[in-house]
Amino acid sequence: MSTVLRGGRLSSKTRRDVVDFISSRESDRRIAGSIVLVNEAHVVSLLNAGVIRRREARKLFRELRRLENTFPKHGIGEDYHLYVEEELTKRLGPELGGKLHTGKSRNDQVATAIRMSLRELLLNLSDRLLSLVDKLLDQAAKHTDIVFVGYTHQQPAQPITYGHYLASIAGPLLRDDERIFEAYRRVNMSPMGSGALAGSSFDLDRGLVAQLLGFEGMIENSLDGVSGRDFLLESLAVCSLLASDLSRLAQDWIFYGSSDVSLIEISPEYSSTSSLMPQKKNADPFEIVRARCARVAANYTTAISMTHALPTGYNLDFQELTPLVWDSIDTLCSCLSVMTGGIASSRVVTGIADRPQVQLTVATEVANSLVRTAGASFREAYRWVGQAVRIVLRDHRTLRELTGEEWSQIAGRPLTAKTYRTILRVADPESNPGLYRTEGSPNPRDVKRKISLGKRTVDSHLRRLEGTRGQLQRASRRMRKIL
Amino acid sequence: MSTVLRGGRLSSKTRRDVVDFISSRESDRRIAGSIVLVNEAHVVSLLNAGVIRRREARKLFRELRRLENTFPKHGIGEDYHLYVEEELTKRLGPELGGKLHTGKSRNDQVATAIRMSLRELLLNLSDRLLSLVDKLLDQAAKHTDIVFVGYTHQQPAQPITYGHYLASIAGPLLRDDERIFEAYRRVNMSPMGSGALAGSSFDLDRGLVAQLLGFEGMIENSLDGVSGRDFLLESLAVCSLLASDLSRLAQDWIFYGSSDVSLIEISPEYSSTSSLMPQKKNADPFEIVRARCARVAANYTTAISMTHALPTGYNLDFQELTPLVWDSIDTLCSCLSVMTGGIASSRVVTGIADRPQVQLTVATEVANSLVRTAGASFREAYRWVGQAVRIVLRDHRTLRELTGEEWSQIAGRPLTAKTYRTILRVADPESNPGLYRTEGSPNPRDVKRKISLGKRTVDSHLRRLEGTRGQLQRASRRMRKIL
Amino acid sequence: MSTVLRGGRLSSKTRRDVVDFISSRESDRRIAGSIVLVNEAHVVSLLNAGVIRRREARKLFRELRRLENTFPKHGIGEDYHLYVEEELTKRLGPELGGKLHTGKSRNDQVATAIRMSLRELLLNLSDRLLSLVDKLLDQAAKHTDIVFVGYTHQQPAQPITYGHYLASIAGPLLRDDERIFEAYRRVNMSPMGSGALAGSSFDLDRGLVAQLLGFEGMIENSLDGVSGRDFLLESLAVCSLLASDLSRLAQDWIFYGSSDVSLIEISPEYSSTSSLMPQKKNADPFEIVRARCARVAANYTTAISMTHALPTGYNLDFQELTPLVWDSIDTLCSCLSVMTGGIASSRVVTGIADRPQVQLTVATEVANSLVRTAGASFREAYRWVGQAVRIVLRDHRTLRELTGEEWSQIAGRPLTAKTYRTILRVADPESNPGLYRTEGSPNPRDVKRKISLGKRTVDSHLRRLEGTRGQLQRASRRMRKIL
Amino acid sequence: MSTVLRGGRLSSKTRRDVVDFISSRESDRRIAGSIVLVNEAHVVSLLNAGVIRRREARKLFRELRRLENTFPKHGIGEDYHLYVEEELTKRLGPELGGKLHTGKSRNDQVATAIRMSLRELLLNLSDRLLSLVDKLLDQAAKHTDIVFVGYTHQQPAQPITYGHYLASIAGPLLRDDERIFEAYRRVNMSPMGSGALAGSSFDLDRGLVAQLLGFEGMIENSLDGVSGRDFLLESLAVCSLLASDLSRLAQDWIFYGSSDVSLIEISPEYSSTSSLMPQKKNADPFEIVRARCARVAANYTTAISMTHALPTGYNLDFQELTPLVWDSIDTLCSCLSVMTGGIASSRVVTGIADRPQVQLTVATEVANSLVRTAGASFREAYRWVGQAVRIVLRDHRTLRELTGEEWSQIAGRPLTAKTYRTILRVADPESNPGLYRTEGSPNPRDVKRKISLGKRTVDSHLRRLEGTRGQLQRASRRMRKIL
Repeated sequence: MSTVLRGGRLSSKTRRDVVDFISSRESDRRIAGSIVLVNEAHVVSLLNAGVIRRREARKLFRELRRLENTFPKHGIGEDYHLYVEEELTKRLGPELGGKLHTGKSRNDQVATAIRMSLRELLLNLSDRLLSLVDKLLDQAAKHTDIVFVGYTHQQPAQPITYGHYLASIAGPLLRDDERIFEAYRRVNMSPMGSGALAGSSFDLDRGLVAQLLGFEGMIENSLDGVSGRDFLLESLAVCSLLASDLSRLAQDWIFYGSSDVSLIEISPEYSSTSSLMPQKKNADPFEIVRARCARVAANYTTAISMTHALPTGYNLDFQELTPLVWDSIDTLCSCLSVMTGGIASSRVVTGIADRPQVQLTVATEVANSLVRTAGASFREAYRWVGQAVRIVLRDHRTLRELTGEEWSQIAGRPLTAKTYRTILRVADPESNPGLYRTEGSPNPRDVKRKISLGKRTVDSHLRRLEGTRGQLQRASRRMRKIL
Repeated sequence: MSTVLRGGRLSSKTRRDVVDFISSRESDRRIAGSIVLVNEAHVVSLLNAGVIRRREARKLFRELRRLENTFPKHGIGEDYHLYVEEELTKRLGPELGGKLHTGKSRNDQVATAIRMSLRELLLNLSDRLLSLVDKLLDQAAKHTDIVFVGYTHQQPAQPITYGHYLASIAGPLLRDDERIFEAYRRVNMSPMGSGALAGSSFDLDRGLVAQLLGFEGMIENSLDGVSGRDFLLESLAVCSLLASDLSRLAQDWIFYGSSDVSLIEISPEYSSTSSLMPQKKNADPFEIVRARCARVAANYTTAISMTHALPTGYNLDFQELTPLVWDSIDTLCSCLSVMTGGIASSRVVTGIADRPQVQLTVATEVANSLVRTAGASFREAYRWVGQAVRIVLRDHRTLRELTGEEWSQIAGRPLTAKTYRTILRVADPESNPGLYRTEGSPNPRDVKRKISLGKRTVDSHLRRLEGTRGQLQRASRRMRKIL
Repeated sequence: MSTVLRGGRLSSKTRRDVVDFISSRESDRRIAGSIVLVNEAHVVSLLNAGVIRRREARKLFRELRRLENTFPKHGIGEDYHLYVEEELTKRLGPELGGKLHTGKSRNDQVATAIRMSLRELLLNLSDRLLSLVDKLLDQAAKHTDIVFVGYTHQQPAQPITYGHYLASIAGPLLRDDERIFEAYRRVNMSPMGSGALAGSSFDLDRGLVAQLLGFEGMIENSLDGVSGRDFLLESLAVCSLLASDLSRLAQDWIFYGSSDVSLIEISPEYSSTSSLMPQKKNADPFEIVRARCARVAANYTTAISMTHALPTGYNLDFQELTPLVWDSIDTLCSCLSVMTGGIASSRVVTGIADRPQVQLTVATEVANSLVRTAGASFREAYRWVGQAVRIVLRDHRTLRELTGEEWSQIAGRPLTAKTYRTILRVADPESNPGLYRTEGSPNPRDVKRKISLGKRTVDSHLRRLEGTRGQLQRASRRMRKIL
Repeated sequence: MSTVLRGGRLSSKTRRDVVDFISSRESDRRIAGSIVLVNEAHVVSLLNAGVIRRREARKLFRELRRLENTFPKHGIGEDYHLYVEEELTKRLGPELGGKLHTGKSRNDQVATAIRMSLRELLLNLSDRLLSLVDKLLDQAAKHTDIVFVGYTHQQPAQPITYGHYLASIAGPLLRDDERIFEAYRRVNMSPMGSGALAGSSFDLDRGLVAQLLGFEGMIENSLDGVSGRDFLLESLAVCSLLASDLSRLAQDWIFYGSSDVSLIEISPEYSSTSSLMPQKKNADPFEIVRARCARVAANYTTAISMTHALPTGYNLDFQELTPLVWDSIDTLCSCLSVMTGGIASSRVVTGIADRPQVQLTVATEVANSLVRTAGASFREAYRWVGQAVRIVLRDHRTLRELTGEEWSQIAGRPLTAKTYRTILRVADPESNPGLYRTEGSPNPRDVKRKISLGKRTVDSHLRRLEGTRGQLQRASRRMRKIL
């Protein structure tokens, strides 16, 4: 038990091993700086409320600033909150040190400090994410004409381009960035001044404290301020959704980079080999991304389960939630870096149009061309092509090798020479992307337009990010000067 | 296998039991109406693209409208998408029926239909949620002066008011409503026209289709349009967060309503008794809310796990995601209704100030008063009160029963008569709420102000909800008239 | 509220919509038969304890037997337990009907009935599982000489045989069957007689009741009997582990059956095609198995979360656990059937040895042969082969096409003609399985031996299953005759 | 990339940051000793197979034994497996060092080493668990006559004894110990000799290796040996089930120890106070147990999700599973210790029979006594008592204060004096435990018998544990002497 809490309610000290068991000291490292800042703002608030005098405030402030950038190796007992009070009591005496905790509680202090550290991390996460999107769009712009295979059900489906595929990933990732920003706005609200749950009978100015600490506003109801961990759960959910998108991207790389599928050549720098099988080249970092993203996704589940059936009010279980969010964001940041490098250093495999399984991906466009040139309904044309596919698979041929006669036979009526020429042209996968006409299709012209738009969106997200960072920095500088 | 798909690629039919196994027919009931509407918009699009003639469009449109409000008991094989084509083919002949699927795929169609049904449900969910918040604030407004106990660590902590507690619940629930609305905006984007993944070589106007179906915009990249299920996952996550808040509320009711804690008297209409123990009155519906909310929260986990390690492109696993979101929203809607009624019919227990465990909750304010009147630092005052608590617990007394002498003895110095009078006044739990001075505290004046603000927020959310519903209805009416 | 519970503790009835909300009637369908049997055994117990007379027991017994095989469409309110008492009261009058519930509670009754229904389902699950294992081993026995590719990191690794692969699946599935049986033994313990939690002051013979209902023993402590849901959680965990193994098998089929990998040809009867892309042949049922297994696995998570932070004693939340276990077992049974048929009807693709990516899988055995014939340490030989692989990949050749000279150049010293001949022989994937010498390797002789052993294990599991079923049937017949 | 793997397949080295990203070095610390032992056994196996000579074996063995108890602070790159080979190559030269990896793979080696470390931890876990059960039974034996409250639905239900409650916890914990042991038997099977997946063409004796390493048998099929992680998932599931039971126990302590319920007095050594509220005494360590158990339970979910949709064969994702199992077992061990101390140092609160909410728990036995003495059917007696409860709650009286006349009025017929005397006697909660007659009830005589039986079960589990440990130690000693 902390020295500052002794001599009161409890007749004997908490056992040392129990203190070790319940201590949050390891995890507090992540919020130690924020805890000190909250104390500084609280000192200003106590001064304004007339609880301490200016001279006292200056002394407290000075010692707090000394603590700002240090985290002690030893000496923290239950948590860093008490450590700060103990240190100030040691340095400034029990009378002044004993005033620091007036009108505040660990409950509001920890919620405030977590939000402060979390908001920084969310901005960093957004930064890394936008950097990946930017690289994806750069790569996409270079490959708008390179034929690639679009899959459904893990089967080759239709010819697309590598640029179109890469650009498709930007969509969900930009939506993830929106979610991060929306979560940020709810994280960046100050619960400070909520006390243990009932605020305080001292005349503390919560709005001033919020402003000093760079918050956009307050969690108003004091009980909500200390009981609400939905900001943490939401952050974990947002991480989980991003992890889900990222693991899909990793899975794509493992799949496209496998020697069976062979659409992408992963750089040796992002590969490993086997200790036994000399021919192996494995997509190790992508497998690790896939697995760690599962952990990030599951961190949310852990948190949800941890808070199940807890009543309103601070419960110590909350302490165990916080490391989950640090783990999720740290993990995502490293995964995003690896993916950014791994994708940028990969090479798309070209000249795939002649592979048998790629040849067949033209089937839809062949059917479409029969609708346009042979007057068939789509469903009729679809059936013809289906039968043609069955024939070529049986005979190990390609669709382009079917003769006009064979097509006529399948159709049950003579097809014109023009129709046949169209089939021949369309049956080349290379020709397909240029045929697509709908917005957002792999058509190179449209993909280029969309990439430009995407780059502009990235820029505007980046500007918003910088603006938000600027606000936090300005608040931080203001507080520096206040006492 | 559907009749419309026979005679092509596969040499034999899918086994009937396998079709039953993979069929989505049960779950399709929830999107059947939307599937028909998507077909209608597609008919308009085919007409504009010159794929079908106006006369054909009218015929297709007429038959589709006939399907709008029926869902057949039998006859659906693999799914409702194929059923619609089969029906139209049956009614209008294979030539015209065979044109319906030109340029579209089940992949874009199902994603579009799910989004349409989901957006309605999200609005309904928001409606129920706002209704609960409204009732909470009404109840809160009536009880701003009724003393209640604020808990931390499941232990009585400080005196608050019932009104302050009820108002504290509005906070997270309104944040949940923000999340629903933000998710809504991402759900309400049209993937229609993405085809199987590569759009189409027919000149289909995706923007027109999106507008006809009431969407705010498009998921542009066609591969993203059919592969992205983040809108579903996000909806499940938002439901999960709401479930977490709701289960806490249910837990509060079970806890406060238990005969040990006895702060709330639950109506017999929301209680059950035991079949064996004649004295029992159990909070059954609240226990069910608690449990079902755990299922809702876990539905997100199920979905995340289901999509883990799936590569880009439609995978049939997606089909199994959809029922999870219906279950989550349905369950939440019924839980919200029960909670709204259950809370409104409950009665707060009054006259609790004399209970021993409530008496002690004044300790913080007694310490604060010693800071103000006896010149103690907070930490010193805190220790005095801690010792006083130890004494009264040992002797089965209350803090108010300690004499001025005893207080002086504890303090180690004589306390003034004024200090002692202050202690006596503050040691009555009833006096505490009026002492709090910080914003958002249980102080009745502040709680009243905050309730007014809360009601205004509810109103603005409701107006937004109605505005959004109006947009969908206008789009729906426009489509009625288009052909 | 049930008529039999009215007129006591609660002043007014539970609202009808609240009863609907909390009712377990839908899920009770699965345990209705067991509930009736428990009542029958309880009647015997009441007779033995002298609480009712023989004549009364006979009447109650007769009416209960009439209920055995019916489940009413309407009329069940809160649950089936009360329905049974209501029905008997209606048929036999309040005096006799009112005796039925003496000394028992819904709490012990429901726990007993769930265990009875669950044990049947666990045996059925084991039955289906053993049938799949049996088919796998039959298929394996036919394919011990067919070369197949073993994968690691989703990359071709070493030549194995199809028989060896199939036999490898039997391992985890037989371990799953062990787990089912071990869970069964803990499920098959009677909690009946635990009452609400404190047993009864009537002299009821718990051992007799357990015996009549076919249980192996008792959950002795009465509080444990009604509070313990670990038998349900364990059953869900066992299902979850089986689901994990089964989803891997489904994933294998999707992967091996894809046109890129093409090691297995799935029967058209277990495939579907696309509505748009005429060439598609998708492994739909296997994707559904994969997805549903994720749900089964997550059902355990739901249950764990649902019970988190519940104190000892019956809580109504338990009611929501039960449907999860029915869903898990039902889903697994249907997935097992589909997998059994899907695997049996699949065809292994032969003649794969010449594919470039298969050619390279001999690398390890080439290195091993260099250890044996060229006196290299393994690590040295490994490096030589690695360089050889790099050369053949660069030049689009195969390992067999490298000349003796090239090998000598790589090794940095002349290799003998014998060494070169060995390389040539070993570099044929077809030769590899025969070279393996360790127990459990793909060597056809060893695989055959292991398949025989596997078949014998299946037989012994089947005999145990039949023995267990026999015990339940004998108990059931005994009870038929007791009154 | 490790020096020993360079110069082969990959043209350039894996990037250093990528190696850091994929490295398992931190987690390998837990299996480092086992990895060395596996290498030692493999050396014996290579000697027997004639791959190395006795002199070489001795040298390798000697250097390996030097590595046994050290884990380097720096210098491990990708993993500890390669580190061992690098070290031996450094110390004994490339020729001898290069022979170490002949016929083995990291795939079989890591699976073997994890199983070895895991089996030790499972035994330690069992040890701690049995120690808790033992303490629970000791405490129970001392309190078989102390009246306690049994709860259902978090409401007081029936009088039991503290001894009966404590004994009830032994039930699920002993079932957990059975599960640990059953998992142990499946963990303790050797996959060594499975190679990368296909065994080896060297004549390695897998049975000998298994025996040297203390395994009970082998995972026979080599593909199963390296692909099967069900032993890890099962261990996580078993931990998850134990965590669920343990968190319930922690929740009981928080609930019973709260000042509202006040059935248990937690020692100050296992409590904390608030930094703001001087009266607070919080059950901090029990809250932390509750929260950490949620994490342990969720670790299983993480693992299940991580392996979803992975095909057969080693995938690097497996590496991320292992830390989960260490975390689960470590966490459980510390939670078990804290719970053991926390429970042993708690004091049951006596003299609770007069509390109003406890008074009512006699209702069931009052009804039962009316069945026996007043000739009422149970349902009739139940209704009478229900009405009596309603009266006493309305008038703030107790059941014992109702007069005989009032009882007669409720019953609607005169009750005899004997009946009334019985009611008076039974209406004292203290009398209830002695009235119970069924096996496993709180009746002190029966509880004492059951505690004796429980102690005997604990002893037999302990003997089994010691026997198992002995086997591992003997194997370990044998290997010491072999070379």
